[in-house]
Amino acid sequence: MRATVIHGPNDIRIDEVPDPRIEHPADAVVRVVNACICGSDLWAYRGVASRVAGQRIGHEFLGIVEEVGSEVSGVRPGDFVVAPFVWSDGTCDFCREGLQTSCPHGGFWGEVGSDGGQGEAVRVPYADGTLVQLPKEAAGDEKLLPGMLALSDVMSTGHHAALSARVRPGSTVAVVGDGAVGLCGVLAAHRLGAGRIIALGRHQVRTDIARRFGATDVVADRGEAAVEAVKELTGGQGAQAVLEAVGTEESMRTAISIARDGGAVGYVGVPHGGSAGIDISQMFDRNITLAGGVAPARAYIPELLPDVLSGAIDPGLVFDRTIGLDGVPDGYRAMDDRTALKVRIAF
Amino acid sequence: MRATVIHGPNDIRIDEVPDPRIEHPADAVVRVVNACICGSDLWAYRGVASRVAGQRIGHEFLGIVEEVGSEVSGVRPGDFVVAPFVWSDGTCDFCREGLQTSCPHGGFWGEVGSDGGQGEAVRVPYADGTLVQLPKEAAGDEKLLPGMLALSDVMSTGHHAALSARVRPGSTVAVVGDGAVGLCGVLAAHRLGAGRIIALGRHQVRTDIARRFGATDVVADRGEAAVEAVKELTGGQGAQAVLEAVGTEESMRTAISIARDGGAVGYVGVPHGGSAGIDISQMFDRNITLAGGVAPARAYIPELLPDVLSGAIDPGLVFDRTIGLDGVPDGYRAMDDRTALKVRIAF
Repeated sequence: MRATVIHGPNDIRIDEVPDPRIEHPADAVVRVVNACICGSDLWAYRGVASRVAGQRIGHEFLGIVEEVGSEVSGVRPGDFVVAPFVWSDGTCDFCREGLQTSCPHGGFWGEVGSDGGQGEAVRVPYADGTLVQLPKEAAGDEKLLPGMLALSDVMSTGHHAALSARVRPGSTVAVVGDGAVGLCGVLAAHRLGAGRIIALGRHQVRTDIARRFGATDVVADRGEAAVEAVKELTGGQGAQAVLEAVGTEESMRTAISIARDGGAVGYVGVPHGGSAGIDISQMFDRNITLAGGVAPARAYIPELLPDVLSGAIDPGLVFDRTIGLDGVPDGYRAMDDRTALKVRIAF
Repeated sequence: MRATVIHGPNDIRIDEVPDPRIEHPADAVVRVVNACICGSDLWAYRGVASRVAGQRIGHEFLGIVEEVGSEVSGVRPGDFVVAPFVWSDGTCDFCREGLQTSCPHGGFWGEVGSDGGQGEAVRVPYADGTLVQLPKEAAGDEKLLPGMLALSDVMSTGHHAALSARVRPGSTVAVVGDGAVGLCGVLAAHRLGAGRIIALGRHQVRTDIARRFGATDVVADRGEAAVEAVKELTGGQGAQAVLEAVGTEESMRTAISIARDGGAVGYVGVPHGGSAGIDISQMFDRNITLAGGVAPARAYIPELLPDVLSGAIDPGLVFDRTIGLDGVPDGYRAMDDRTALKVRIAF
C-alpha cells in the first residue's frame, strides 16, 4: 500500500510500504477514509522535531475496520471508526480515569515501528481501547466527514484547552493562536457557554472562522499591544479563561499576562522554546493557574461526537483544502507557508 | 509605641515609632496581642528581598480593636480580631469572589507607609474588609492563641496549597517543604480527607510535627532521590496532589516530578529563583496543573477558625518559641539559623 513517509526536513514523500496486518490479538487494521495534516506535523517537516528518515507520519484519521485480532470485541470489520491521536489500552488506571494520553501501553501514530495516519491503512494497537465508533451512514457524508475527522485531534484539543482553562457559562475567554486548534478552542469555549470570546489572531481568513465559531472580539496585535488590547476589552482585568494554542515562549507570556487574577491558562500548544515564557512571580502574585497538556482525545470524542452529528458544532470548517494522497507533499508546503489552514486528505 | 523596624540586612531593631491613629474613616487601630515571624520575613532579613531602611516588618497578628474610624461598622473597640497578611477593601469584585489578595485597594503589612505586625499596635486600613472577629473569651487563652495566630498566614497558606493541588477525600498527597507552611499544608490536606500524605523534609523535629499533623510517610531525600522515593511509595505513579511550600527552582522541579500524571501542584512558596524549575514539556506530556500563589487568607479564616476553636486542628503547634518584643532580633536569628521553626511574639 501507499503511505506518507518523512525522509528528512522538507522531504515528505508518498512511498510504497508493507500492508499492515494483525500483529497482536488486540490489533485492528483500519482502511483510511480521511486523514489530515496537523500544525504539529510541521515541526517534524521543518526539522525542529527530529524524526528518523523513513518514519511514517500523520496522527489523525478515520476509516473502515478491515480486520481485527482475536481479542478485539468492540469493533468488527465494516465498522466506521475514528482514532484519537494516541492509542491506548482502555483498561489501565489512566484510561479508566480519562487520561488515555498517559496509558503505559499507549503510543503516538507515526512513532518508530508504528503506522502513521497519512496512509491508505493503519494497524491500530489496542483497537478496543483506541477506536471510537461512528455511524456507518456517515462514512460517505462529505458534510460530516471533516467534523468527525477534527475530533481525532484539533477539536478534542481545543476542548481540552477550554476545560483546562475552566471555561464556564458566562466566562470571559481569550484564545491565543489562530491555527486550527485555537479556532477549535473558540468553538469549544462557545459550546461550553462562554459569554465573551476574544480571539487573538492576525490572519483575517482565520479570524473570520473564529467569528463563525463564536468569537465576539478579535485582537490582531501581538505581545504587549495584545495584552493592552485584551485588558481594554475586559475593563482592565483580563480574561477569566485563556486558551494557549501556540506553544512558544511569546504566546505563553501573552497568555499569562492577559489572564485575570485568579484565572486559568489552558495550554495545549506543544511547547517549543522551554519555560522562559512562564513568569512564576507574576503567576504567584495574581494566582494564575496553568493547566492542560496533551489532550486525551479518546475521552472527549464520545462527548463531542453527538454535537458534530447533530450539526450543533462544525469543527470541520477548519479544513480549507482537500487533497488526495499524492497531494500530501504539496499540502505540507501549503500549511508551512500558511496558504492553507488545515489540509484534509481524502482517499 | 515600640515596633520592629528593619534597617538593613541582618539589622532588625525594636524602635520607638509614632503611635498609630485613624487616618481614614475606614481604618481601625488594633493593639497587638500576638504576632509572629514568618519564613518569608527572612528573605528581607537576609537582604534577598529589598527593603527601605526604616521599613516596618511583620504581617501576622491578632489583637484588640482600640479605635475605629467613622465608616467602620463591622468591628468596634474591645473586639478581638485576627488580620490576614494582606488588607483588602471587602467590597471590590475580587474581595467578593474570595481573592482578596488581588484587591486593588489592598496592601501588605510593612510596605512603605504602613504599619507592620511585629509592633505594639497597627493601623488597619479597610478594617471591615480586613479583620475577622475572634471570640473575646479566647483572647487570653494560651492554648488557642497560637492556632488563631496561625490563621493569619501559615495555616491559610497551607490550606490554599491543598485546595490548589485539588486535595480530595482519599487523595495521595505529597508536601515539599517542612517549614511552617509545609507543615500546615500537611494539616490542611489531612483536614480535607487525604488518604495518604507524604511529607518531604529532613529535620526530624519538623517531620515529627508533620506526623502529628497527619503525614503517613516521611521522605528525607532531596532532588532525584526524593523523586525516586515518592515514586516508590506510590506504585511508580507519583502523588495526585503536590503542595510546593518552598519556592526555589529545585523544590518546584521536585514538586512537578513527583506529581502523578493528570495531577496538580499547589504552589505557595514565594518564588525565589525564577521559572527554571518549571519543565513545561514534562508538564505538557503528563498533564500536570500548576495552581496556587499568594493565599487569600481573608477568605479562608472564617472556614478554618471553627476547627481551631473546637480543637479539630491545632496549627499552633508550628510555634516552637515564644518571645517578647525585645526578643524579636534574636527570633530572626533563631529562624535564620534554623534553631527555631516559627517564633511567636507575645505582648
